[in-house]
Amino acid sequence: ARPKVGYFYTGKNALSMVTEQVSRIKVQDIQSVPVVVTSGTSAYDAVVTMFLEDVGSVFVVEPGGILAGVVSRKDVLKVAMGGSDLHKMPVKVLMTPMPKIVVTSPDEPVLTAAKKIIDNEVDSLPVVLLANHQGAKVYEVVGRLTKTNIARLFVELGEGRGGEQL
Amino acid sequence: ARPKVGYFYTGKNALSMVTEQVSRIKVQDIQSVPVVVTSGTSAYDAVVTMFLEDVGSVFVVEPGGILAGVVSRKDVLKVAMGGSDLHKMPVKVLMTPMPKIVVTSPDEPVLTAAKKIIDNEVDSLPVVLLANHQGAKVYEVVGRLTKTNIARLFVELGEGRGGEQL
Repeated sequence: ARPKVGYFYTGKNALSMVTEQVSRIKVQDIQSVPVVVTSGTSAYDAVVTMFLEDVGSVFVVEPGGILAGVVSRKDVLKVAMGGSDLHKMPVKVLMTPMPKIVVTSPDEPVLTAAKKIIDNEVDSLPVVLLANHQGAKVYEVVGRLTKTNIARLFVELGEGRGGEQL
Repeated sequence: ARPKVGYFYTGKNALSMVTEQVSRIKVQDIQSVPVVVTSGTSAYDAVVTMFLEDVGSVFVVEPGGILAGVVSRKDVLKVAMGGSDLHKMPVKVLMTPMPKIVVTSPDEPVLTAAKKIIDNEVDSLPVVLLANHQGAKVYEVVGRLTKTNIARLFVELGEGRGGEQL
């Protein structure tokens, strides 16, 4: 028999190949470093951090990197409209607190995490590890998954570059 | 010879198929409706519109839907830090004005537009048509392409649903 060049597909189409390709990519392959402030800081410091680091969300943490809340740019819109003094406002007033935060983990497929971002209408997810802290289950923040990470992956896959890096 | 089932690939890999699949998708296939304010409005009205419509950017237009500027959430961060009174500030002070705005068009490939979003570090692009206005070349705003549109497309393609809708 003549040797086959390339490979042979039985009934698979381009979309099922996209699905297969994408399903192997994990959050840890594309995540960014988290940008955090401590829970005792002011709302002003959180907004300055968000601006200087050029991120859409900052994570508010307790000692040990334990997730306490998330401040998004949308939270800042509310304060800007209200005309409150950010210096006098604790970050805890501005943030969305646990347990209302949608999270992901390093080994979750990017596709599942991207679906969480879309379905929950958020700009980013904290990447967390489940940990024990004084007997309670808590989330330790280890990364940040954003729509930018996903858009960049889309560009890389679309340009046929994803296979080299992932 | 035995009839072939499915189809036969010579040297093509999954990534080149992703590229082919994605390269056929245009901006108009996934764009959102634009959210606009007029150039005579206040910065406060632009921020309220941004909040109520739950968008990351509003486009500032002259009569006829001609693009004059873009206000992003990042612009609002600056004002929130500075403590300026949004009511007294014209939107023109807050916005990024033309010609500094990166735009896309309905028939541009999504991949090219997504690359513009990543490379220019913006959250969205106005989708525009080139028009003549009193002898000058101007952009008429017809849509909005956001990182959310791209993340949603990524999820749809990854789940093998893109082919039905696009």
